[in-house]
Order: sequence, then C-alpha cells, then structure tokens
Amino acid sequence: MTSPSSPRRAELTRKPERGRPDRASLDAVLDAVPVGTLSTVVDGRPWVVPMLFCRDGDRLLLHGSTGAGALRHVAAGSPAALSVVHLDGIVVADSTFDSSANYRSAVVHGSLAPIDGDEKDPALRKLSDAILPGRTAEVRSTTAKEFAATLALSLPIADGCWTVKVRSGPPSEPGDPNVWQGVVPVGLTVGSPEPASWLGSDVPVPASVRALADGWSAR
Amino acid sequence: MTSPSSPRRAELTRKPERGRPDRASLDAVLDAVPVGTLSTVVDGRPWVVPMLFCRDGDRLLLHGSTGAGALRHVAAGSPAALSVVHLDGIVVADSTFDSSANYRSAVVHGSLAPIDGDEKDPALRKLSDAILPGRTAEVRSTTAKEFAATLALSLPIADGCWTVKVRSGPPSEPGDPNVWQGVVPVGLTVGSPEPASWLGSDVPVPASVRALADGWSAR
Repeated sequence: MTSPSSPRRAELTRKPERGRPDRASLDAVLDAVPVGTLSTVVDGRPWVVPMLFCRDGDRLLLHGSTGAGALRHVAAGSPAALSVVHLDGIVVADSTFDSSANYRSAVVHGSLAPIDGDEKDPALRKLSDAILPGRTAEVRSTTAKEFAATLALSLPIADGCWTVKVRSGPPSEPGDPNVWQGVVPVGLTVGSPEPASWLGSDVPVPASVRALADGWSAR
Repeated sequence: MTSPSSPRRAELTRKPERGRPDRASLDAVLDAVPVGTLSTVVDGRPWVVPMLFCRDGDRLLLHGSTGAGALRHVAAGSPAALSVVHLDGIVVADSTFDSSANYRSAVVHGSLAPIDGDEKDPALRKLSDAILPGRTAEVRSTTAKEFAATLALSLPIADGCWTVKVRSGPPSEPGDPNVWQGVVPVGLTVGSPEPASWLGSDVPVPASVRALADGWSAR
C-alpha cells in the first residue's frame, strides 16, 4: 500500500512487447521534443495542460507563471504525470484491425516540486537552453521582476515510476501480398527562421536558432 | 455544485487572450492530427495514455482493446479528458522571459461511453477512415473475432466542457532591434509511403495512402 503522496508504480498491462525498460530509451523519448502534456487531478477530475519541458539528468524541469492557480495546486505536491508522444508514422496493414501507428511515447509519474533559492536561476536557464541551445548567453538577463513572476518546477524521474512505449516498422505480420501494406512516415520538421518585421536587415540569425534546426533533426 | 459524474466546466484562467471560444476553432484543432492524450483518474492519481482518435460531429471516437483494463475503467464512466497539442513554432524574443511557443491545443472534458450494438461498426469505420481516408473500402471487412476484441468509445463535445488555446505570430512586443527575434516554424510533415518488403513491385499505392499526405498537409 502506497501513501497518498507517493507516486504510483507504473506498469504496462497492454502490448508489453512495446515497452522499453531501459533509461536510455526513456531519455531518448524525453529529449526528442520539448513539448509534453501535464496531467494531474483537481477535485477528483483530470486537469491537463500542454507544457514546454526538458530533462535535466534524473528530473524534468517545467516552468509557468506564479499566477497560474492550477499550476500552483500541482506544485503543492498533487500526483502528476508528464506524458509525451511523438507520432512517427501510420502503419497500413491489409485490414483496418491490423493497421496501427508508429510512435514513441513516455509517461513519468510523480509529484512536482517548486524549485526555489539558488537552484531556481540555473534551472530556468537549463530549460531555456534546452529549447533554444545557448540562447541565455545571447540575450539580456532575466530581471528580478520577471524572475519573481516565474514558477520553476521539477518532476523526479524515479525508478519504477515511468513507462516508455515504442512501435516502429511495418505491419507485424505479412498480409495479402496483393493489397498495399507499409508505413507512411510522419514527423516533426523545423523550417527556416522567420525574422520579426521590426528587425533590421543586418541582424544575423544567431547560433541558438541555427542549432535548433540542427539539434532537433539529429535527435 | 456538479454531481460526481458530470464533467467539469472548462475555463481558462491563464492567458485568456489565447482562448478561442468558437466551435470552429475547436474542430480545426481536433481535426488536424488524429493523435491525442487521454487522461483520467485511477485511485486518485492521473492515468494517461496516447490515443488515436477522430471527431465525429459533436463527439470524439476512440478505440482500444477489450483486454485493456484501465481503458475499461475509463469506459465505465470515470471523468476523462482528451487533449491535443500541435507545436507550430518556437517564438524567439530578445529575452528568454518573453520567448514562447506557437501552438494549437484543445482539451475536451467528459465521460467516455462504450459504443455498442448497431452503432459500433460505423463508429470504427469512421475512425479508420479519418486516419486513412477511404481505407475501409480498400480492405477486407473486420472479422467477428476482431470486432469482438475491439472496444469503441465516444466522448461527447458538450458546451462549456472544452477549451482551445492558440498562440501564433512573432513575439508579442517589439524588442531590441539589434537582437534577433522571430519564429522558428515547426510542424508535422508526411513523408513518402514505404511499402512493406513482402509486397510485389506491381501493387500500386492506394488512394487512401495518397490522400493521407494530401489531407494532412491541407489542414
């Protein structure tokens, strides 16, 4: 029996062959794209919000506004889960029943905790640089007012509290060779940077923005 | 005071200017890509799973295996939420504080209900054809055994029980004109179909697969 504040141990009951028990697989899914879905429970009902996040070793970093009431509720230690799903393709079989999707998904269960004191500034910098590599070195520092308005949160990646599921490849079983079967690949792509209209024409695209396209495509 | 089984009325408390109160905006977000995240509450904790889904008028259609225990729990009427988020870009300001992401997101709250009887087959066909347009007409029918092993579920789109949030465009306020600002566009793209290795070379790519690429890119 677990206490109310301890995270649920996570287990896959369906399609366990799609599970990936190793941390390297988890890290690869979490590090691919910095967008996830944060789910928690408010008044017995699901509360859900998409969030930017990044992994920092054995924890996830998130941020939000100190004015976000529901986020404060989560920060107060409610059970939470951060989930990500990357669609990689549509799997076309010779029946709709055997058709599927290729994807990489992960769910990390735990309790969010606020990051305060000396840890807050490096955590927020880490998150910014994970989204846009090296950006913090290119721009002015965050002001005291901005800093105070920002909530920094961490979610631990604890043993037994996460799951990873991956499906890849063609349909599981060869079907009727006269009916088309295969995969239609789908994926996130990064386009060319679009400068704001108020920029002078001689402001170069910075290294952080160039690295974004290179970094995501390499993941 | 709502009863335990009635859905929470959904309200945006943060960044209300990003909200879109019209159904057309909701439908556009839900119809863009058939992948969402289903969240519910099991033993007081969030339970989360990525799901294929589609919108059918004023309801969402989902499916799963009748062997999925947690999904049966959801189907039994627990409060649930289906959320989607489409990342459209990284918004680069002249400070990390004002940087952001462009996205379209939606959350639909309600209770899932199983679809049985005469409604089940058309619902499953609708879902298959939403993912791969017209596919049900190209392949054999689902067998009785397959049909029995598939759980079809609906989530109503009820007034006041959904939210849509959209951010688009450059940073909100023009900043230092000497520091690069703008948007790095990001989006899902559909690649060329990859035939399974066991297909003969003379099996043409069917209309459904060709329509997938055309349909998603047009949304």
